[in-house]
Amino acid sequence: MASPLTLRAEDFPRWYQDVITQAELADNGPVRGTMVIRPWGYAIWERMQAEMDARIKEAGADNAYFPLFIPESYLQREAEHVEGFSPELAVVTHGGGRRLEEPIVVRPTSETVINSFFAKWIHSYRDLPLLLNQWSNVVRWELRPRLFLRTSEFLWQEGHTAHATADEARQYALRILQDVYVSTMVGVLAIPVLTGHKTARERFAGATRTWTCESMMGDGKALQMGTSHELGQNFARAFGIQFSTDTGAQEYVWQTSWGASTRLVGALIMAHGDDAGLRLPPHLAPVEVVVLVVKGGEGVAVAVTQLVAELRDAGHRVRVDDRVDVSFGRRSVDWELKGVPVRVEVGPRDLAAGQVTLVRRDRQEKTSVSVSAAAQQVLSALVSSQRDLLQEAQERMDERTTSVKTVDEAADAAASGFATLPWEAVGEDGEARLAEAGVSVRCLQRPDGSLAAGEDEPGLVAVVAKAY
Amino acid sequence: MASPLTLRAEDFPRWYQDVITQAELADNGPVRGTMVIRPWGYAIWERMQAEMDARIKEAGADNAYFPLFIPESYLQREAEHVEGFSPELAVVTHGGGRRLEEPIVVRPTSETVINSFFAKWIHSYRDLPLLLNQWSNVVRWELRPRLFLRTSEFLWQEGHTAHATADEARQYALRILQDVYVSTMVGVLAIPVLTGHKTARERFAGATRTWTCESMMGDGKALQMGTSHELGQNFARAFGIQFSTDTGAQEYVWQTSWGASTRLVGALIMAHGDDAGLRLPPHLAPVEVVVLVVKGGEGVAVAVTQLVAELRDAGHRVRVDDRVDVSFGRRSVDWELKGVPVRVEVGPRDLAAGQVTLVRRDRQEKTSVSVSAAAQQVLSALVSSQRDLLQEAQERMDERTTSVKTVDEAADAAASGFATLPWEAVGEDGEARLAEAGVSVRCLQRPDGSLAAGEDEPGLVAVVAKAY
Repeated sequence: MASPLTLRAEDFPRWYQDVITQAELADNGPVRGTMVIRPWGYAIWERMQAEMDARIKEAGADNAYFPLFIPESYLQREAEHVEGFSPELAVVTHGGGRRLEEPIVVRPTSETVINSFFAKWIHSYRDLPLLLNQWSNVVRWELRPRLFLRTSEFLWQEGHTAHATADEARQYALRILQDVYVSTMVGVLAIPVLTGHKTARERFAGATRTWTCESMMGDGKALQMGTSHELGQNFARAFGIQFSTDTGAQEYVWQTSWGASTRLVGALIMAHGDDAGLRLPPHLAPVEVVVLVVKGGEGVAVAVTQLVAELRDAGHRVRVDDRVDVSFGRRSVDWELKGVPVRVEVGPRDLAAGQVTLVRRDRQEKTSVSVSAAAQQVLSALVSSQRDLLQEAQERMDERTTSVKTVDEAADAAASGFATLPWEAVGEDGEARLAEAGVSVRCLQRPDGSLAAGEDEPGLVAVVAKAY
Repeated sequence: MASPLTLRAEDFPRWYQDVITQAELADNGPVRGTMVIRPWGYAIWERMQAEMDARIKEAGADNAYFPLFIPESYLQREAEHVEGFSPELAVVTHGGGRRLEEPIVVRPTSETVINSFFAKWIHSYRDLPLLLNQWSNVVRWELRPRLFLRTSEFLWQEGHTAHATADEARQYALRILQDVYVSTMVGVLAIPVLTGHKTARERFAGATRTWTCESMMGDGKALQMGTSHELGQNFARAFGIQFSTDTGAQEYVWQTSWGASTRLVGALIMAHGDDAGLRLPPHLAPVEVVVLVVKGGEGVAVAVTQLVAELRDAGHRVRVDDRVDVSFGRRSVDWELKGVPVRVEVGPRDLAAGQVTLVRRDRQEKTSVSVSAAAQQVLSALVSSQRDLLQEAQERMDERTTSVKTVDEAADAAASGFATLPWEAVGEDGEARLAEAGVSVRCLQRPDGSLAAGEDEPGLVAVVAKAY
């Protein structure tokens, strides 16, 4: 039986851990920093995967799979890349009962191994663009692990592409940012995001530019939701990925890579969760509607069957909970914890009056509705719930974002939310001072929130915050 | 441009490798024994995943995810299990720049880590059955790797369940065997399978009984397609997985585990491939129909658009190949290699006569059909192709299975196919003699092909063969 959750206002990190435990989302693995994703947590991830995968395919990328194991020497080939990832590597030294001649690293990301194949597969401009994506696990040794947010092993997708020109690569990196990440996060997860590019300090190791989606969690901190990198010709030079142009010249390709991970499950918890548990936006929820049989009785089975059929016919994900040997209270609390958007309670007493009870999870709002109108009311509650969760998160981000002028003011403001200030007022020195206060520049963008055209465009705004 | 494949009759293993290379299914990874699954190979695997995943969920199991890394000590807990897997382990000794206190193994399978959580999650009979599945990569060091068939890392699903009684566990293991594996293999992959149980020698390390699906490849050898294990209480005792019964007694659970892997892609190639490449059964094919524009011209675009719309409306996976700057011959050969079941060639000359050309890949049969009837003809070709591929494979298995009386005869017969003989005529000694000839007992079954009721049921038949 669930015990009450820690209140968010009391101890947000502990509330987060409580939700994960009591909603049965995940558990710590036996090796420090690893994670067991339990069925409800995994069902949420599967829905995220399905939504992103469809968008990735729509953007023309094909799925493929590259090996978990990478020769250590591959990572050395791109200087910044190896410097960035070396401290986080897991190293296999023995295989099949013998010491290996060359140590193998467990992939922290797959640029090196994938680009060694790009070099083999790409010959001519006719082979471009080459657009691949893989769904996989990666390992980055984590000293301060937190479930979903920072785990030594996590699940993600990583896209890797090669293009004939710098401009085409940039357009594709931005297309992924908008059409895959922003589209999924805003349209499905109901989480508003800011987009912009990272400062040199925060850039992906080996990239020339990193585009990012950043969102505000319930405690005002930032979470990086997904990144899309322009790699320039860095890996192309390191791995010798050349193509002959239509005039017969040999040129290096221009590349992108982009990823989003199971950390999005953590984002979902912290963006929408309340003191009763998770709140899932309907578009994402593995179960949009749970029909809860209060207790058996005349007409209950018939009413449930008919309601479920109507909702499923309308294309919705519905579950029936008729475990009447478990107390109604316990079951209600459990579905609340798990965040199912709409609950319909069906019992003989209500039914005798021609009614059922509809509960919207996002507002904890109970209403009696007539049996005949129940399906329609559920559908409209789903629409409202999706919209309202996004709006609520947007309002929080708006309210808790402060416009300031100096680095000191920014550090203060970041105690409770985001701060924006002119990038000229920060610079690399200011960024270092912010870092001492545990604050980072989440992204640079134009004052109107749009993306910069060039790295050094004047007048950019820095969005700064404490971050997960 | 594709060069001709080695002929199957000349050198079957080389033909297999040629198909994989020229159909762009996979490539060797840089670490010996690892594999890159290229987009076409991965699309085939994704279709297999989708079909099996739906059946696994239908059988009531939920997906979850357990860590890649397992403490070495966990494997020690079940004696047979560790003995079976020790020689194949990859061991991580360093993480985050430091030597680890306890070495970590990369999962060769997940019984140990999953059962350590079952012990935590299972308390009462109300928690049973617990039915989980995971899609993941696993690592088993492979000294004689062959793409898809034996790779050091492979992708698979592994199911793990716990039940209150031995009988319920057995029924579930058999349900998975039939409703997930046989159903997918026969109904989708169009590969006929024999089912039975493994001898003690061939049993999964730690199981009390292993049920298997075995099929015959194009060269008469056997391939194990999927296995479903009864684990008895072996892991329950090793990991302390007990539950209180409804009378309050403490009992160990009864368990199953079951898996099928990317080796099924290898099976598909070898079961259906011909001297022109892969032949995909329509239910499985990522692309069921390719509409090939011979060259542009009057009415071509309109005819293609209409045909594609009709086929997609009927729920089929269709691709248009209008790369008219690439020679028609090259494109035809490429789609043949890739095994797309039906090709429709649309060109201005045919169209002027109101016709298009329909090519069935499985029979290399070309027919001219009228434009207005094209969609209908394609649909019927898809149905026939699915049926005929299964029938062809079934006939091969029937023709190349010989009933014999002695171990010596069985060893001879296994040079060209399967042999069946009374298990009493084999026994453990006979099995050892067969092994010397490179022949193994694939499964034990009743003379009518049905499954045995008990381990020692008299009158069982052994199916023996050389195997991949």
